[in-house]
Amino acid sequence: MDFFKPESVLNLQNIRDELVKMEDTIIFNFIERSHFATCSSVYERNAPEIKLPDFDGSFLDWALMKMEVVHSQLRRFESPDETPFFPDKILEPIIPSLNYPKILASYSNEINYNDKIKQIYIKDIVPLLSKRDINTWENFGSVATRDIEALQSLSRRIHFGKFVAEAKFQNEPEKFTKLIQDKDVDGIVAAITNSEVEEKILHRLNIKASVYGVDPTNEKGDRKITPEYLVKIYEEIVIPITKEVEVEYLLRRLED
Amino acid sequence: MDFFKPESVLNLQNIRDELVKMEDTIIFNFIERSHFATCSSVYERNAPEIKLPDFDGSFLDWALMKMEVVHSQLRRFESPDETPFFPDKILEPIIPSLNYPKILASYSNEINYNDKIKQIYIKDIVPLLSKRDINTWENFGSVATRDIEALQSLSRRIHFGKFVAEAKFQNEPEKFTKLIQDKDVDGIVAAITNSEVEEKILHRLNIKASVYGVDPTNEKGDRKITPEYLVKIYEEIVIPITKEVEVEYLLRRLED
Ligand SMILES: N[C@@H](Cc1c[nH]c2ccccc12)C(=O)O
Ligand SMILES: N[C@@H](Cc1c[nH]c2ccccc12)C(=O)O
Repeated sequence: MDFFKPESVLNLQNIRDELVKMEDTIIFNFIERSHFATCSSVYERNAPEIKLPDFDGSFLDWALMKMEVVHSQLRRFESPDETPFFPDKILEPIIPSLNYPKILASYSNEINYNDKIKQIYIKDIVPLLSKRDINTWENFGSVATRDIEALQSLSRRIHFGKFVAEAKFQNEPEKFTKLIQDKDVDGIVAAITNSEVEEKILHRLNIKASVYGVDPTNEKGDRKITPEYLVKIYEEIVIPITKEVEVEYLLRRLED
Repeated sequence: MDFFKPESVLNLQNIRDELVKMEDTIIFNFIERSHFATCSSVYERNAPEIKLPDFDGSFLDWALMKMEVVHSQLRRFESPDETPFFPDKILEPIIPSLNYPKILASYSNEINYNDKIKQIYIKDIVPLLSKRDINTWENFGSVATRDIEALQSLSRRIHFGKFVAEAKFQNEPEKFTKLIQDKDVDGIVAAITNSEVEEKILHRLNIKASVYGVDPTNEKGDRKITPEYLVKIYEEIVIPITKEVEVEYLLRRLED
């Protein structure tokens, strides 16, 4: 995907191809997380044994925040497909800006579902991925690193809804303008929902999880990710939150 | 692998199981890198358009160094299976130490092949993985992030040779003591080489790359990693450098 070519970014087929690639990334990241226990202390605010000096948050928050600060200096969040978890903490780039062309509406950075994604990830996704519900102290760093990768890939997937929404708006401007003027949320949801595409996604995920989730040279080996769980995560979390992003984006689209 | 249980860490079967798991991680990381072009400027010292203030190194070096600093504060490099690329830049942990039991010889941290790994990765591995040999400016951050993951997984795999060496020493102390006293490098190499195991690794990698490297729902899709390249990388780089680690570790083993 080349963000210097707005027409190509707003081509729905290109967007779908990119979403398909992201599925692999998300599955690989989930598999990497699945080797570890839940490690609830990693997510606990100011957990006593790993309390971080001068910081009010969890071990994961600290690691994620520090990482975002470094990446922001490398201009990560200038890119329209990247959304920070700590928008108040990131810094200005220390290398020259890339001057991306405008593709999304100007309020687009205000649409940020990362807090919600992080909460649901911790509460609902981690328990489905990890095999044991204990704290293994010697893995906290590895766990946080895997969580960061998983969260970033989920965040990128879900906020890609902005491109989907913009593309759909540009394809049918009159229809969407009417729905937006009428504040017809149900109508917008109906207009952006394509059940056939959703069915295909879930079907594809089932196959991918079956293939990627088991060592092909050791069929008796542990299954690293359960296809039904992956489907459940997409069906109940990823797809619905992506739609929330799309709806919020579209509802404001006439501001721009 | 539980580094609080030295007996289990030095069990050769457990080590091999861990090495098998690392293969998947390395392959997944290679696949993630394969989506991008070579981007040689990412590796160039003080590349003009992305020159980092007050830093004498490449874009990748800066990102890797900053990341290691953060992780060192979370006690990453206390763990005997983690080896820093910037041992002079890392900091003390800011959370309580874990006090790992001693498993490896006391000089073990001095054995660090990361400079070599980084050089060979840039020179020989990146060209095999990426599809086009150009600079795509808008991907430098993503590329560096993928490189960091790939380098860390290679580093962990290769330095795991220390555990292999220690386990082999403890299994046959007289034999190795004699070889070490005689400074018989060829003899040590022969003693640690198991061609049958190596053949099995290469065979397994071939299968894994074939299965993981193509989208199972789109057989006409692009192949993301070429099995022969993966085998070549292991045969010519990963396995030989792991042996160098083992030999260097063993040659000093009587110091301890
Ligand atoms: N496995 C150790 C060391 C480690 C690996 N990756 C890390 C990243 C951050 C901090 C520590 C680590 C841990 O989880 O603690
Ligand atoms: N894709 C953009 C943004 C980005 C993604 N991940 C990053 C990590 C660091 C810096 C930037 C990024 C780039 O490669 O530049």
